[in-house]
Amino acid sequence: MAERATARRVQRDVARQPRGDVTRQAILDAAESLFANVGYAAARLEDVALEVGIRRPSIIYYFPGKQQLYDEVEASIFAAMRAFVHERMAQAHDPMAQLLTLLDAWLDFLVARPTAARIIQRLAADHGPRGDNPVEFSDPVLRDLERVIGAGVAAGVFAPVSAMHVLNAVSAGPLFYVCNANQLGTDRRYDPADPTELAAFRALQHKLARAAVTA
Amino acid sequence: MAERATARRVQRDVARQPRGDVTRQAILDAAESLFANVGYAAARLEDVALEVGIRRPSIIYYFPGKQQLYDEVEASIFAAMRAFVHERMAQAHDPMAQLLTLLDAWLDFLVARPTAARIIQRLAADHGPRGDNPVEFSDPVLRDLERVIGAGVAAGVFAPVSAMHVLNAVSAGPLFYVCNANQLGTDRRYDPADPTELAAFRALQHKLARAAVTA
Repeated sequence: MAERATARRVQRDVARQPRGDVTRQAILDAAESLFANVGYAAARLEDVALEVGIRRPSIIYYFPGKQQLYDEVEASIFAAMRAFVHERMAQAHDPMAQLLTLLDAWLDFLVARPTAARIIQRLAADHGPRGDNPVEFSDPVLRDLERVIGAGVAAGVFAPVSAMHVLNAVSAGPLFYVCNANQLGTDRRYDPADPTELAAFRALQHKLARAAVTA
Repeated sequence: MAERATARRVQRDVARQPRGDVTRQAILDAAESLFANVGYAAARLEDVALEVGIRRPSIIYYFPGKQQLYDEVEASIFAAMRAFVHERMAQAHDPMAQLLTLLDAWLDFLVARPTAARIIQRLAADHGPRGDNPVEFSDPVLRDLERVIGAGVAAGVFAPVSAMHVLNAVSAGPLFYVCNANQLGTDRRYDPADPTELAAFRALQHKLARAAVTA
């Protein structure tokens, strides 16, 4: 998928990596697709190995087990998402601009990396991979939203609203927009990366975000 | 869970069922929990049997395989959701009242039956259980929303908006609200059925729904 390749290029320059790192990254890419498609519980290291074209023991050389491999995938998703957001946020100053910039950045990130959208989507339903501390890797991303909402409320620009309600009610949208593209039946199929489709969804998100923080 | 028991009472009266139907329903209940918790791919009929206290062949007597069992669970969720919505909708006449009533009904249904919320949540991420026709059972529920939005747009009461964008941007909220209760870390934990919490989330949903269909 072209969009995903673009998103990945932001993070690394494959040509400059030593051979071991290239294999390691190939394992992570294959694992991200597999965890996205079948979920943590059903994913098997054998299938990751098959996709990369190596044998199972070669994965164990890089990652001791499925949990560690999953952890690295989830950590890399939230780290990349956060870096992407912070780059954009540097230009936004008042609370409303910050909120819209944050939501736009999440939307663009997820459209460019749909495997991340599916994995985050599963995090809401799964007790599995992050059982003890479900926000081990996502916490900084959640705190970004809490900080923006909190600053707007403190400045009297936003009505008092729970940041987690905004998360559930507004930020869930981009996840469904990306994940549902082929899940609503043939007649309702759409391309989340199509510029017209994306612009319409973004405009709707902006409306909802403004409504959520306005009295 | 008390809420779930209440939601189930709407659908059946256990005391009047013959013994075979009671076992069948116990299998369906256990399967719904398991599919909600681990997803379709990782769910095993052995675990359903263990939960019900019967042996695997007894499940096969009622359901030929995992796909058929899953189908019946998913079908029952959407049928119950639709019946719940239609009962409420009888009182709503203008398009805005219909939209808010529909969204309220979905919210209340999902709060009362969180296993349904988790299973629907997974449908957006999974290619698995409904691969060929992802909306085999959910289509009537989607058409309810399309009809309400379409009627509002046709009457000139709603601004032109894609029903599927409203689905992704607004209706996704209740799913996350229910599923995320324990998935956002100890400090952000909440009870989706708590009346104050639920009232605040419902008020936010109403704001978003109004904003979504207003120019």
